[in-house]
Amino acid sequence: MKILITGGAGFVGQRVAMECLHRGKLDISDQPIESIVLTDNADPPFWHDGLREDKRVTTSFGDISDSAYVTSLFEQSFDVVFHLASIVSGQGETDFDLAMRVNLDGTRYLFEEIRAQKNNARVVFASSVASFGGDDMPDVVNDQTKQTPRTTYGMTKVIGELLINDYSRKGFFDGRSARLPTVIVRPGKPNQAASSFVSGLFREPLNGEPCVIPVDPSLVMPVLGYKSIVDGLIKLAELAPEVLGSDRAVGLPALNVSVQEMMDALKRAAGNRHLGEHVLQKDQAISTICESWPKYADTQRGQDMGLPIESSIEEIVTQYIADYLEAS
Amino acid sequence: MKILITGGAGFVGQRVAMECLHRGKLDISDQPIESIVLTDNADPPFWHDGLREDKRVTTSFGDISDSAYVTSLFEQSFDVVFHLASIVSGQGETDFDLAMRVNLDGTRYLFEEIRAQKNNARVVFASSVASFGGDDMPDVVNDQTKQTPRTTYGMTKVIGELLINDYSRKGFFDGRSARLPTVIVRPGKPNQAASSFVSGLFREPLNGEPCVIPVDPSLVMPVLGYKSIVDGLIKLAELAPEVLGSDRAVGLPALNVSVQEMMDALKRAAGNRHLGEHVLQKDQAISTICESWPKYADTQRGQDMGLPIESSIEEIVTQYIADYLEAS
Repeated sequence: MKILITGGAGFVGQRVAMECLHRGKLDISDQPIESIVLTDNADPPFWHDGLREDKRVTTSFGDISDSAYVTSLFEQSFDVVFHLASIVSGQGETDFDLAMRVNLDGTRYLFEEIRAQKNNARVVFASSVASFGGDDMPDVVNDQTKQTPRTTYGMTKVIGELLINDYSRKGFFDGRSARLPTVIVRPGKPNQAASSFVSGLFREPLNGEPCVIPVDPSLVMPVLGYKSIVDGLIKLAELAPEVLGSDRAVGLPALNVSVQEMMDALKRAAGNRHLGEHVLQKDQAISTICESWPKYADTQRGQDMGLPIESSIEEIVTQYIADYLEAS
Repeated sequence: MKILITGGAGFVGQRVAMECLHRGKLDISDQPIESIVLTDNADPPFWHDGLREDKRVTTSFGDISDSAYVTSLFEQSFDVVFHLASIVSGQGETDFDLAMRVNLDGTRYLFEEIRAQKNNARVVFASSVASFGGDDMPDVVNDQTKQTPRTTYGMTKVIGELLINDYSRKGFFDGRSARLPTVIVRPGKPNQAASSFVSGLFREPLNGEPCVIPVDPSLVMPVLGYKSIVDGLIKLAELAPEVLGSDRAVGLPALNVSVQEMMDALKRAAGNRHLGEHVLQKDQAISTICESWPKYADTQRGQDMGLPIESSIEEIVTQYIADYLEAS
């Protein structure tokens, strides 16, 4: 089995690769994982230890919005593709054309190459709860809720879901979309996602540094730990198509918690560690984007499919401390 | 005021042009309509009498999926654009790539040119009830219903609606999407739309010819007369943006009637005219597409905005007889 991961140098991409390598095979075929190609546009801030040293892993750097580059990736064929590469929400708001080029054109180049393989590859596309929004968004969103996004990022994610459904319906490949809640706790540095502070509010204080909270602490957001995100993406690749039905977009399970509850959970999970402080300092641009997103995601459909969820924010923080602070 | 109509040689495009010319101005500005450009990919089966003779009308033939052609249209600027050009449902199912090229790429070329004008032009995009579908489609669809189309045509229509919303949100232009029910009665010849027979079931018998009914007569479909379609498209262009809210896609009002009810209404409206017969002969491909569409559209939101609707199928047939049979 050969696997391609776009956005493969990113945090989630690296962890999907690590988990696949750890398992050795996926519950799709009896073939062991022979190779994983990680493609991304640039070297990441950090590589997880041991990942690039694994003989099954190769990296490839290029621009997914360059069709010739995407074609070059497919000199070999892939059985499973995790399409995680994306311009993120904040960046998409400042550069509409870049978001369209990478998130829409790039996705289409990729999907056309997978289609041309004619091997009915499994494709998992990373969508987002940011695909919801608008004046008429209900208080609780679920997999039946109309997506009327208020970011270009979210708009391109809905289009990706539509393409996944139609390419699958036409038999071009066997696709699935995972609608990701905000991923916590991302290690490393902040990125240009409007939700970037949600990882920062754990990460920076645990590093003894302050973290600016740019939104009202009462804001409720659907979040999920990276372990469940990664296990959920892999599980979605493994599910039989019949389980999904005609709409192959599934909201990953989520914990719906306020920013204040996350700050409180950090203090409980941190034990005796010295914590940097949270500095409340509202940023209007970030607040506007985050407030346009759903407050509460009903993710029962995904949970019924066996997609995992952590029991609490504390569990997520404890995992992060074990993986990124105690291990190093 | 300058108006561009894509699909301008089509039946609806020609009638939108005729109605605009008849009115002389739209309820958008005090400027009279100075010119209307009708663009299409080929000469139509017929031109309505007098349309091309109007000094305000020019025609332009070219391929909207050719970006250079689209650019050439914008050597002048337009205040209002009706974007009606589209690969239709049946054709989109047999040629996925053509549907993507015309309905998605072509739409993007057009929208980029309108954006580049920087004049906040009004744009009306013709979407379709075919944008609804899927295992989980409710019995009644409305403007809040999630669109999970089961045709490539419908998929590209949802994408168009998403683009209209985001281009409008970003201030690139002032867009609106009109979700059209099946348009009756189209004169002329059948086209490759799976719903083409719905016009044929009136038109062919009125011409004394038989018409094959390829679906179960109990099938209920949302339909609307061409007069209300045209008046609705123009009204949607005229509405103040505040009326629309963040989701600028509006289902045009529709009559939800069975094929049997339409056949019965024809007999009542035809009076003493000799009618060709209806021949029930199921076509599985057409049935599959039509059965994937909504049975019942709740279009109260559009009606509350003042978009028109005929009172009955008989009214629509009577109008058609007056316009196309008695006038000629």
